[in-house]
Amino acid sequence: MSFDLQLEKVKQVEGILKETDTDLWLVWVRETSQMADPVLELIYGGSFVWQSALMFPSNGKPLAIVGDFDVDATKATGLFDGVIPYTKSIKDVLIKELNRLGPSKIAINFSRNDVAADGLSHGMYLILKDYLADSDFKSRLISAETVVSKLRGRKTATEIERIKKAVQITESIFEEARRFVKVGMTELEIYNKFHKAVAQHDVGFAWGEDHNPAVDAGPYKQFGHSGPTVNTVKKGHLLHFDFGVKYQDYCSDLQRMFFFGNPEDVPDEVQNAFETVRDAIQAAADWIRPGAVGYEVDTIAREFVKERGYEEYQHALGHQVGRQAHDGGTLLGPRWERYGATPMGVVEVGNVFTLELYVTTEHYGQVSLEEDILITRKSCEFLSRPQKELICIP
Amino acid sequence: MSFDLQLEKVKQVEGILKETDTDLWLVWVRETSQMADPVLELIYGGSFVWQSALMFPSNGKPLAIVGDFDVDATKATGLFDGVIPYTKSIKDVLIKELNRLGPSKIAINFSRNDVAADGLSHGMYLILKDYLADSDFKSRLISAETVVSKLRGRKTATEIERIKKAVQITESIFEEARRFVKVGMTELEIYNKFHKAVAQHDVGFAWGEDHNPAVDAGPYKQFGHSGPTVNTVKKGHLLHFDFGVKYQDYCSDLQRMFFFGNPEDVPDEVQNAFETVRDAIQAAADWIRPGAVGYEVDTIAREFVKERGYEEYQHALGHQVGRQAHDGGTLLGPRWERYGATPMGVVEVGNVFTLELYVTTEHYGQVSLEEDILITRKSCEFLSRPQKELICIP
Repeated sequence: MSFDLQLEKVKQVEGILKETDTDLWLVWVRETSQMADPVLELIYGGSFVWQSALMFPSNGKPLAIVGDFDVDATKATGLFDGVIPYTKSIKDVLIKELNRLGPSKIAINFSRNDVAADGLSHGMYLILKDYLADSDFKSRLISAETVVSKLRGRKTATEIERIKKAVQITESIFEEARRFVKVGMTELEIYNKFHKAVAQHDVGFAWGEDHNPAVDAGPYKQFGHSGPTVNTVKKGHLLHFDFGVKYQDYCSDLQRMFFFGNPEDVPDEVQNAFETVRDAIQAAADWIRPGAVGYEVDTIAREFVKERGYEEYQHALGHQVGRQAHDGGTLLGPRWERYGATPMGVVEVGNVFTLELYVTTEHYGQVSLEEDILITRKSCEFLSRPQKELICIP
Repeated sequence: MSFDLQLEKVKQVEGILKETDTDLWLVWVRETSQMADPVLELIYGGSFVWQSALMFPSNGKPLAIVGDFDVDATKATGLFDGVIPYTKSIKDVLIKELNRLGPSKIAINFSRNDVAADGLSHGMYLILKDYLADSDFKSRLISAETVVSKLRGRKTATEIERIKKAVQITESIFEEARRFVKVGMTELEIYNKFHKAVAQHDVGFAWGEDHNPAVDAGPYKQFGHSGPTVNTVKKGHLLHFDFGVKYQDYCSDLQRMFFFGNPEDVPDEVQNAFETVRDAIQAAADWIRPGAVGYEVDTIAREFVKERGYEEYQHALGHQVGRQAHDGGTLLGPRWERYGATPMGVVEVGNVFTLELYVTTEHYGQVSLEEDILITRKSCEFLSRPQKELICIP
């Protein structure tokens, strides 16, 4: 196994710790084959059996304290300058290393806002508090939310290459779908064809394969997370896809709209809806830049569709994409309670976001698109080729 | 997707809650595709995007509060009598349902001892505390450790059938290995043959495939979690395997010892070690029964090997096996700090345990075996065919 990608990520850590004024980042885990902190695959790539402490100081080299049985595998990654073993209890060696480093702030992985930064279990938190009870460190624990969010969000060159490839493969499969999708097929038949194509391209699914792709035929189906049904595709109807693949652990996430009929048969109602969605996404893409706050970007698109007379979409405009289709961190979303503080996050260079939204027509159901973008130094670039016209299947 | 197995498990919950005097079990999760509470696959089998509350009252039917997009999929499982949707925030509906049920104890999934019962993240714990801050429920939260441990540990008929099948397949592959393992092969070559066999049997791996099977040739390799090497198998040497497969989500976990030479060539030192390990496992199997405390069972085997003049093994005698090779709950282990309170747990009918231990010889390295047993009403039955003699490859 190669740990080159993990090394790219670990190299980002020290700078982020300095930037966020964090003395020490402590990744505190156990039995990770059963439940793994989501940052672990980013910075380690293996698993730990016993209680393990991965320590990243802002002014020093990363080190790991791990159980005897995990020592060889941890050393083999080459990610840690020091690998310190223990046999019966980690407590004494953990305290010793903390005393040596003397951090006044210790960031640990809990977060109300971001599941990707919330990998510490409550039981492991209690154990850490127990271990630190007689030391000054017990009152120095802070959330690593910002650290994890920046680390996860700032995609490295390798990560960007993999996401691009995932997007390309997704687009190839949509191209194939232009040919195999026909009037009279059920959602399930179409879904099965996509699964065959995914296997042929030898990639995985960006999210649960029971609703990937989402295939929504006709006007009566609410887009969401339910699987394909026996609804059939009919002439004059729309067909919606939400589809993403996983290429070498990295995801794509795209929505496309097909119409069954010739371009000149597209009803005005549908065409207006399509153009509104397409142009709202473009408006947000034109506006987004490093330093923008998440909810500001959402507002651009949300106001756009409202000004066109549509009801606002009931979700966020965009989420980050990476190892997960929903990769955590800053959200391009409205300030609704269920999104916590994530819409207050800041857009950074190297972030990959979706731009996605729907509007609802009176007679043809929802019209929804989704593109993937990469934040560049002054603006953004599309990783997907944005859908500019309805894909018409005569 | 069928939810029959989950239904078997959900049916166990009410009895366990009554037994443990727990009014309500609250499984409190979000974005489970990124990090999932380990109990979720046991009682649900799908995933949730937004904050979700699965509520199991001790005197009533299970219900789920989930985000709009998750409603259809949750209903489709048929596991919950009520599925209550929300759009912007779960807080009000959660409090309303708690007020209706009026529990004086609410068990949530955190545990210092058992990773399988520690699926609640610290961030989600803080969110729950925030939501309950103005209610009486905030001081009624307790650990669901015992509930989860009993639920996970008491295997249903379907679970036992699957584990049996996983054990049978593992034993078939060991039978194949008798024929394909030869003097001169490297650990890596043997490991690759096992992987081919696993693919042919169309099963998965019970743990990380980089060290499954563990293949340890000759006297100098410490058994542990490191992968196979270019060490070659030599005449007169031992070969050790630690190997488990996953069949329909359920695991096996077995260790076997091969010797290269004829049975009459086995050195006394090796034969004594082998018999000690084999007989220590049998002694523990003869003694174990429902109601036994974990560490008591470990002591039987541990004292056995010490009385035969060997150093004691540096791990627990047995762990539970189920969806995970290390399935949590009661541990048949010594009362060492790193095992927390798990060796104080009680053995129950329907538990599946490993019995495993090693002794170290002076000239031939370690000798280690592992069997899988099912706890029955008065004793136990072996799910594996215990290894009674060294497997000699002439």
